[in-house]
Amino acid sequence: MRTLIREVPAKMDRPVLIGGLPGLGSVGRIAASFLIRELGAKRVAALYSPYFPHYGIVNSKGVVRLPKNDFYYWRSGTNGAELLILTGDCQPQSPRGQYEVALKILEYAKSKSVKLIVTIGGYSAEEREVPRVYGATNSYAWMERLKGLGVEVDVSGVPIVGMAGLIPALARSKGLDALCLLGETVGYMPDPKAAKAVLSVVMGLLGLELNLSNLDPDIERMAELKAKLREAERRVEGAMRRASGEGPKYIS
Amino acid sequence: MRTLIREVPAKMDRPVLIGGLPGLGSVGRIAASFLIRELGAKRVAALYSPYFPHYGIVNSKGVVRLPKNDFYYWRSGTNGAELLILTGDCQPQSPRGQYEVALKILEYAKSKSVKLIVTIGGYSAEEREVPRVYGATNSYAWMERLKGLGVEVDVSGVPIVGMAGLIPALARSKGLDALCLLGETVGYMPDPKAAKAVLSVVMGLLGLELNLSNLDPDIERMAELKAKLREAERRVEGAMRRASGEGPKYIS
Amino acid sequence: MRTLIREVPAKMDRPVLIGGLPGLGSVGRIAASFLIRELGAKRVAALYSPYFPHYGIVNSKGVVRLPKNDFYYWRSGTNGAELLILTGDCQPQSPRGQYEVALKILEYAKSKSVKLIVTIGGYSAEEREVPRVYGATNSYAWMERLKGLGVEVDVSGVPIVGMAGLIPALARSKGLDALCLLGETVGYMPDPKAAKAVLSVVMGLLGLELNLSNLDPDIERMAELKAKLREAERRVEGAMRRASGEGPKYIS
Amino acid sequence: MRTLIREVPAKMDRPVLIGGLPGLGSVGRIAASFLIRELGAKRVAALYSPYFPHYGIVNSKGVVRLPKNDFYYWRSGTNGAELLILTGDCQPQSPRGQYEVALKILEYAKSKSVKLIVTIGGYSAEEREVPRVYGATNSYAWMERLKGLGVEVDVSGVPIVGMAGLIPALARSKGLDALCLLGETVGYMPDPKAAKAVLSVVMGLLGLELNLSNLDPDIERMAELKAKLREAERRVEGAMRRASGEGPKYIS
Repeated sequence: MRTLIREVPAKMDRPVLIGGLPGLGSVGRIAASFLIRELGAKRVAALYSPYFPHYGIVNSKGVVRLPKNDFYYWRSGTNGAELLILTGDCQPQSPRGQYEVALKILEYAKSKSVKLIVTIGGYSAEEREVPRVYGATNSYAWMERLKGLGVEVDVSGVPIVGMAGLIPALARSKGLDALCLLGETVGYMPDPKAAKAVLSVVMGLLGLELNLSNLDPDIERMAELKAKLREAERRVEGAMRRASGEGPKYIS
Repeated sequence: MRTLIREVPAKMDRPVLIGGLPGLGSVGRIAASFLIRELGAKRVAALYSPYFPHYGIVNSKGVVRLPKNDFYYWRSGTNGAELLILTGDCQPQSPRGQYEVALKILEYAKSKSVKLIVTIGGYSAEEREVPRVYGATNSYAWMERLKGLGVEVDVSGVPIVGMAGLIPALARSKGLDALCLLGETVGYMPDPKAAKAVLSVVMGLLGLELNLSNLDPDIERMAELKAKLREAERRVEGAMRRASGEGPKYIS
Repeated sequence: MRTLIREVPAKMDRPVLIGGLPGLGSVGRIAASFLIRELGAKRVAALYSPYFPHYGIVNSKGVVRLPKNDFYYWRSGTNGAELLILTGDCQPQSPRGQYEVALKILEYAKSKSVKLIVTIGGYSAEEREVPRVYGATNSYAWMERLKGLGVEVDVSGVPIVGMAGLIPALARSKGLDALCLLGETVGYMPDPKAAKAVLSVVMGLLGLELNLSNLDPDIERMAELKAKLREAERRVEGAMRRASGEGPKYIS
Repeated sequence: MRTLIREVPAKMDRPVLIGGLPGLGSVGRIAASFLIRELGAKRVAALYSPYFPHYGIVNSKGVVRLPKNDFYYWRSGTNGAELLILTGDCQPQSPRGQYEVALKILEYAKSKSVKLIVTIGGYSAEEREVPRVYGATNSYAWMERLKGLGVEVDVSGVPIVGMAGLIPALARSKGLDALCLLGETVGYMPDPKAAKAVLSVVMGLLGLELNLSNLDPDIERMAELKAKLREAERRVEGAMRRASGEGPKYIS
């Protein structure tokens, strides 16, 4: 078995490919899933690979299936803007697999006359009230656009690990413009706030209209969960101090 | 060397393939071995792969051989029901190997006109008096049958790692119906009780007659072993507390 | 680059292949090196593989070369007995590499009309005054010979990891008789005593005349080194107990 | 995707290839980068490989690109001496990848009529005022030259891990002379001092004129950084001792 794409016939003109796969803080996956849900994009292709993890996944109806990446297509009813949205269960498990799958995605993008690729991911950082968005591109033309949208483009020397970095890096050799948008995230939990920050850049970049406040319930839920985890940590630490016969350091 | 199957000529009509390979709590392997022994199934094929572990195994006669997976065939003398039972020493050691071996197994199943595939494995859980059986299938038709047999089919989102999940997930692309049955197990020791729970579902599903009480001596042996391990753990913990000059916390 | 063998022309009739590669207690490598030195065997082939570790090795003359496995040939001046001795720097680094290299070795053995393969390795055990030798074979004919020489053949179920187990396990499919001899060793240090125990079996098995007492200086050297290590360990433990304010447990 | 080289047309006669890739103490990379900067060498080729890490790298202009190895070419205006300098972001991530990339580099060297290959790396050692330089070669002819330049050639048995060792080890099979120069380094930080020691040997070996004192500012910066790190370690250790209620051992 080789990496392969199964597609349903779908007419596209010049879509923008937006990729958000699992990764740091699930930023990419949350953003892509939001776009699919909000826009009502339709599934047009699925990518399978022997470099994906070796498991079956059970869907909500109890059906077991292979892990995969999916492409969804959406065309605006008003201005004809087109999106091809990539998301999925997983990323390939080895460097070789990452290269093979990224190239297969670019091949598909090429065959669909994709005019721009935007990958979305997380950028590891301390917590911040409003997460920043970092960007990089394989095309000088897009650099100025990113700066104009308030994106930090000073990430020189930083490796962007996984598909979010590899796809734009490989795109140039296929003659495709690509850029990568990374939202600041602490990263150990799903981070819809970081996804929202990136999506607001995507809106400006592509002239999309999205109701990003629909992400707010998820953001609140994660904030509550985080608060509970911290409270639990504090309690565990207290119990450990008492068990070892110590009071808190600051009053000893 | 590629993954390959060596078979002896054997006439089959429409057997059900039951796969139980090493894994969590050895549930699959115990179940498959029990079927082979109880039914007196005959070995009809062996699968070798360079993705299997790199060792020789010594059999009970001192003969060193490759690790392998074996297929055993059985036909009922009364109603003509047929089983092709898969078990073995090991699972492939990498994602790529898992995909390659699973596809080779499906190819063999296809060539033998297999009408249904049932894989058996363990489902990680706390200990419970009567282990539950979880199920997933690649076919809606079988879903209702599973529910009717008391199988829990609500395992949405859970990855079923290894051959037990990958074979059913890949089977659809070969046009083969498949389902996966997982017995609850703590998992760190061989668990014949979980295997028994799964086998009682298999009996109902396929209309097999099996004397599952033949597993009871093994179940008792494992229960005794577990009790001894717990007692030993308690003693070690006590000794460690005394060595560090502490009494049990609750009387200090 | 594929795994390949470079050989010099050498006339052989029906040699016995003896393989001793790095592994547990270096038992195989010490035994093979001893045979080459004692018998004055000549190098006839070298095996290179991209599955070997990725380094250059510097020989005693400062020349950097690839890691490799070597074959040495010896013919007895008295009775025409022939040995092809395999040893080397390393073993392949992955299951796939192990299978590929083992098959390449068997192909070479076949092309040289090898009549029997004997691999040598270590068997993990507690220290014992006289190490036992365990054996396994892919041929019932040789089983009785091993028993007659005092070799323990009851190693049922034990996986023999690496080339020492994989070569005999694969040999059957090439129509080659093979056996594996394992000397008991603690394993964390080179163990010439275990190698000597195995070589005394090899002498009986093949009717070789070897002066095994030439291994005694090495055995003494390792025994002294071991005694020093134990003494150092005792001193470290004592210092740690004193530092933590404890006396030895037995007088507290 | 396979490992590949993209080159710009460049006329060369018989250059010396100097390779310095990331590794212990970054000795090779620092040395190669220094040569490129000092001599004003021009980039003539880039090597890409699916065995390189799976990330995109952002350059100083915000452009994301693949990790790669680069070749730079320089011809002396005075005596016609030619260098082809290899450096890059990374080394391949697996033994197989190391072999594949090293062979691709040798193929390119061969096509450019390279007359000698010199790889540079680090040699793990305690800190020393003046780092020694160790050398190994695949050609006896060069051995005497190395000794004459004060290089230690007694590194028998030491494996030289990675491209610095593998390229010279593989070069013989391509009919190419190669040597490897290793500067002593503690290794956990970039070590321009070790690079300077190796470069002074390279100057003598190839008759190059280089102003190595241009490395001194870097050397001083690293020495200051090291001093600060040690001071910080001392403070942490002191704080930990006080927190655990112990004074320094020597006054208790």
